[in-house]
Amino acid sequence: MIILGVDPGTAITGYGILQSDGDALKMIAYGTITTPSTWKMPRRLEAIHRELVALIALHQPTDAVIEKLFFSKNVRTALSVGQARGVALLAAAQAGLTIHEYTPLEIKQAVVGYGRAEKAQIQQMVKLLLQLDFVPQPDDAADALAIAICHAHSAKFEKLKDER
Amino acid sequence: MIILGVDPGTAITGYGILQSDGDALKMIAYGTITTPSTWKMPRRLEAIHRELVALIALHQPTDAVIEKLFFSKNVRTALSVGQARGVALLAAAQAGLTIHEYTPLEIKQAVVGYGRAEKAQIQQMVKLLLQLDFVPQPDDAADALAIAICHAHSAKFEKLKDER
Repeated sequence: MIILGVDPGTAITGYGILQSDGDALKMIAYGTITTPSTWKMPRRLEAIHRELVALIALHQPTDAVIEKLFFSKNVRTALSVGQARGVALLAAAQAGLTIHEYTPLEIKQAVVGYGRAEKAQIQQMVKLLLQLDFVPQPDDAADALAIAICHAHSAKFEKLKDER
Repeated sequence: MIILGVDPGTAITGYGILQSDGDALKMIAYGTITTPSTWKMPRRLEAIHRELVALIALHQPTDAVIEKLFFSKNVRTALSVGQARGVALLAAAQAGLTIHEYTPLEIKQAVVGYGRAEKAQIQQMVKLLLQLDFVPQPDDAADALAIAICHAHSAKFEKLKDER
């Protein structure tokens, strides 16, 4: 199973792609899609969508994972994040990926083992779990990898449950 | 100039398309894109995007207009509206349309003449300005036509300014 994790935002969208075969996790790619603040919103959204479509075509993930959001700093941020989230979900749906959502709590629990983990702990665990020699940067890319790891763990757990 | 007005929402997205030649406004099409609440969000967003792309291909608007939003009932609504707004802006950007945004106040002022107009007044003015025999329904479609009318008026005003 190849999993695409996405952490959407109009300025920076993080992505992380990994392969999950039973126990083993293998990092395939990670990075960010950044759009200049001088660009108007439609152009920024078009760039995010286009780059995600290209990443999906290149790496052929089967599953896309995104953070489930219920709250935000304020309504204005929520509208902006919502727009980026909308085009990210669209790119995944158009490519026929299975789409999963997890809450921030579920992601922290899956990656670090408890729900109140801090950013640095999550990044260290992402490094460990993917057997990297470095902490993936920036935060948005590390977060996207953490989201993908969360789904890999959850899918493994579901499979174990089915086999009992 | 053919103008597409959009009032985006994940459950109902209203649209209105009109032709503006100097003084005359002519209604070309209006309606809604509705998606069942039983559908998951990515599927709903894909349907909204696909139908907007089809409407743009059919009616060949040059300009797209959307309400500028700064606030919302709550953060959850803002995230949801943001997602629908994101795929609407994307459809317009992908088709190369010029995209304009107006605040609710600007739209009411342009259509009714003052910024605190009520919904029924706006609908009556939409009927009058487009010389219709009926009030366009539902609200979402009428709102989308009002947004398109706002841009037609604004564009005419800008043209007059340029000619002075």
